[in-house]
Amino acid sequence: MTETAPGAALLETHAEVLEAATNALATREYYSRYPESPSPRVYGETAAQEGQAAFEQARNATFTPLADQPGTGAEVGSEVSPYGPPLGVRYPELDVDAAVAAAQAALPAWRDAGPRVRAAVCVEIIEQINRRSHELANAVMHTSGQPFVMSFQAGGPHAQDRALEAVAAALVEQERVPASVTWEKPTKGEPIRMQKDYRVVPRGLALVIGCNTFPTWNAYPGLFASLATGNPVLIKPHPRAVLPLAITASIARDVLDHAGFDRALVQLAAEGEPVEGRDGLAKTLALHPAVRIIDYTGGPGFGGWLEREAGGAGKLVYTEKAGLNTVVVDSTDNLEGLLGNLAFSFSLYSGQMCTAPQNVYVPAGGVSTDEGELTYAQFAERLAGAITAFNADESRAVEILGATVNPDVRARATDVPGLAQRLGGELLLDARPITHPTYPDAVVRVPALIGVDAANTPAYSQECFGPVAFVIRTEDTGASLRLLRQTVQEHGAMTASVYSTDEEVLEAAREAAADAGVALSENLTGQIFVNQTAAFSDFHGTGANPAANAAYTDAAFVANRFRVITSRRHV
Amino acid sequence: MTETAPGAALLETHAEVLEAATNALATREYYSRYPESPSPRVYGETAAQEGQAAFEQARNATFTPLADQPGTGAEVGSEVSPYGPPLGVRYPELDVDAAVAAAQAALPAWRDAGPRVRAAVCVEIIEQINRRSHELANAVMHTSGQPFVMSFQAGGPHAQDRALEAVAAALVEQERVPASVTWEKPTKGEPIRMQKDYRVVPRGLALVIGCNTFPTWNAYPGLFASLATGNPVLIKPHPRAVLPLAITASIARDVLDHAGFDRALVQLAAEGEPVEGRDGLAKTLALHPAVRIIDYTGGPGFGGWLEREAGGAGKLVYTEKAGLNTVVVDSTDNLEGLLGNLAFSFSLYSGQMCTAPQNVYVPAGGVSTDEGELTYAQFAERLAGAITAFNADESRAVEILGATVNPDVRARATDVPGLAQRLGGELLLDARPITHPTYPDAVVRVPALIGVDAANTPAYSQECFGPVAFVIRTEDTGASLRLLRQTVQEHGAMTASVYSTDEEVLEAAREAAADAGVALSENLTGQIFVNQTAAFSDFHGTGANPAANAAYTDAAFVANRFRVITSRRHV
Repeated sequence: MTETAPGAALLETHAEVLEAATNALATREYYSRYPESPSPRVYGETAAQEGQAAFEQARNATFTPLADQPGTGAEVGSEVSPYGPPLGVRYPELDVDAAVAAAQAALPAWRDAGPRVRAAVCVEIIEQINRRSHELANAVMHTSGQPFVMSFQAGGPHAQDRALEAVAAALVEQERVPASVTWEKPTKGEPIRMQKDYRVVPRGLALVIGCNTFPTWNAYPGLFASLATGNPVLIKPHPRAVLPLAITASIARDVLDHAGFDRALVQLAAEGEPVEGRDGLAKTLALHPAVRIIDYTGGPGFGGWLEREAGGAGKLVYTEKAGLNTVVVDSTDNLEGLLGNLAFSFSLYSGQMCTAPQNVYVPAGGVSTDEGELTYAQFAERLAGAITAFNADESRAVEILGATVNPDVRARATDVPGLAQRLGGELLLDARPITHPTYPDAVVRVPALIGVDAANTPAYSQECFGPVAFVIRTEDTGASLRLLRQTVQEHGAMTASVYSTDEEVLEAAREAAADAGVALSENLTGQIFVNQTAAFSDFHGTGANPAANAAYTDAAFVANRFRVITSRRHV
Repeated sequence: MTETAPGAALLETHAEVLEAATNALATREYYSRYPESPSPRVYGETAAQEGQAAFEQARNATFTPLADQPGTGAEVGSEVSPYGPPLGVRYPELDVDAAVAAAQAALPAWRDAGPRVRAAVCVEIIEQINRRSHELANAVMHTSGQPFVMSFQAGGPHAQDRALEAVAAALVEQERVPASVTWEKPTKGEPIRMQKDYRVVPRGLALVIGCNTFPTWNAYPGLFASLATGNPVLIKPHPRAVLPLAITASIARDVLDHAGFDRALVQLAAEGEPVEGRDGLAKTLALHPAVRIIDYTGGPGFGGWLEREAGGAGKLVYTEKAGLNTVVVDSTDNLEGLLGNLAFSFSLYSGQMCTAPQNVYVPAGGVSTDEGELTYAQFAERLAGAITAFNADESRAVEILGATVNPDVRARATDVPGLAQRLGGELLLDARPITHPTYPDAVVRVPALIGVDAANTPAYSQECFGPVAFVIRTEDTGASLRLLRQTVQEHGAMTASVYSTDEEVLEAAREAAADAGVALSENLTGQIFVNQTAAFSDFHGTGANPAANAAYTDAAFVANRFRVITSRRHV
């Protein structure tokens, strides 16, 4: 069904949600549109089964929903679930030049639809994505290795809320400039009157480069920020996490078509495992002259290359890379709460979140707690004990830990004693293997702890992605805060947290976080965790340290994706 | 006088102007705070004399107002007025490392003052600059070669309005994120309550690289956008146009000091004429690791280098370079108005504005006018005649033309027949020399016209800065619009304009301008000129074509100069 004015029918349908979302973004109060509970009461009695069935149906088959993309005729795809089984999905390979041409041909109508129609169409895409949250949860689980409930939440509603946030932010920015004004300059005689029309135009083709661990959550902000500001988007998923973005792209294309726009506004460029010694597809696409915007999540190597090469070539590059997420422990009036909270943060998805804590600074003089003074060694022991206890029930633990995502992580996780020795640290807690009851091939590990002295800087000043954290003995809390400032300024961090009962220490920690350019969580002892951020309220990343050059979602993340073209004339 | 809370006293003083400025920015209606008339009735009976006296006093002397900057002990300065006389001003050479350290030490207090205090202090700086508009006019005139009234207007009030616009835009962006919120997430039991504090922090040290032709107008937006968002600023003026920015810096430093802040928040790094084969100071400063933001106006060579090298190194780089400003002539019902308007646009400052028209597309089939059909040749002749007539009264003409700014421009302006021959064009109007009645050494030229065929693309597809324009014979208006689209997409443009009585042609021109990413002026036949933009209403540049990667002043120009750091805790 195509309306006379494409997308117009959706304007009214989604006016209310856009109003609520833009309000939430302005106040930063609690707001969530998409329920995070996978419960049948929320998503329907049959939703879970249907989602799983849809996922199973996609396996060992050609992904036909994208068969209408311009293709080379070949098929690609080599996904293997971190839980064991190969996915067997075969994706039609995109003909890049034909896809670029199709995207450019699709641009004018999308541009001319205007910000509000685009926002409404984007909301409709997100609504349709939401209805397939269970299917996406299975796809995210079996590409990222996340446990199921997390796959559902982070891969589904939380990602959808972030998508809506990006759409709302983009709408606000585009509507800040009026469509038209009558400008009247006083003179001695008649005033000079001009009509000035302001037209929002997109930058051009946008590229979203997905990651392995959060295929949807980390791709949606860039995808929807670019699309909502009028740019056609080419999605280049991680070779090991194609399916969640393939489903996403197919939904987006259907909604666009249904609303009267060109499907080519969203296209997926899948690839198989990269061939040793050959550039991956992301590099080729990033340097394509038609590509004007790039969103990237992943390792700092390729991220740095993008910033230098694509950024230096005048493309807008938004990166989220890696860093040294830091916890400063000074004192607490709730030791159990502290330990439980940290144990969860380490364990969730086996530390494979870009926001998971890695470096825990503990003063040599010990930690004052509601259970008395603990020496550095005692605190480390209690922390190790908390991690062990938290993961004692193995059938429950796997539902938090998930599976290790790739060989790199597995290599670190399976020889922590060797790692500790190489780094000159002390093994405080080895990474305990757990056999997954359903997926015996999955490599599941309870997080390990390595103790190091603050003087051993090299040991803890690089990211150690996965289930390994460091308990670093510092001179005192002042030294801990100096290290936070210094390591984050140099190497970046997505998160920082502090535990102290002393208001002066907390204030000093806020100063250190502001200097280092990292968000700070204080005294988390309950059900809020340093590695989780809430859309519409918490920024994800700050763009103020080397871990990421942008934040989800502030004005800077959206305002440069479009430009304003004025035409003026006398009236 | 230092208040207990630095800058607090200025909050109330400037609340009203900030309110008016932010409102104007939102509506884009006419607004100007600083009167553009140099009249004694506006600026005071003695203002003109005092301004000139202050300028004369600065000549042939050490510039003592900046003597308190960290210096090397040496003095630099080699300014020579385009009107003839050397200025003889000697500037204390900045000790860069000491200056960077001083700027960094000054940052925390400025950051912690918050957006509104910073905005108020910035307004106070602009107010003080405004009071010295006559002095600045003399300084701008004798560094840029602009005629006096233009030096006053563009170098004074218009630049000050652009400065205020940047401050207002920066304030709006910084205040979009609340200082604090109580976030309340519903759960089955008690809601989870957190307090989240959002703190605006600057990027770091900002560098403003000034240009020769508009030392204040082009430097103020970046200077005030960076300063208002909390960044200390290092100003690197063009070696031939130091004085206007030296005066500016000294005023800013005094106001900052008076308000209780550190003078080191604004510092001037003057240099003399660059030594052949040695990097200029701008290059050194741009690559200094402490520099996080760069604003640049000038040639595309160094601008491109900055985008690649400094941009690739992760610094924010805002450039305004050069382009092919385009006029499409189709038809008119006011030939005299059209010719007079274009003659003024070509003549003003001898075409040495980055916004001055250069390429005039005229259909081979001729132009339909209220004086009948004109062939291409007839139109070209009328245009040449209009330029000649406009500059007939030489004593009046010099007050529009000003002086040629540098040897490059002079070389082109003094051998237009040779230039026409080299380019394979036809000399339609040579650049007539005028002797300036007061400054006989000034090289003053009435703009020249060269006719070329559209097929001779190389002739007109590079910027020919100064008093030379091209009248390009195209197949028809459709071809003219295609050339506009194509040349601007490839080479950039700061401005475009169209003359047509046909609404369809105007609509097609708007489409072409949107595709090319350039602002369009339609049928200007009165006292608004394509090369002039009004602060708060017209964007200067679009950032959507190669001529400039940013616009004065949209959200994208300010929103990334600061970051937001959250701290959150349970309540």
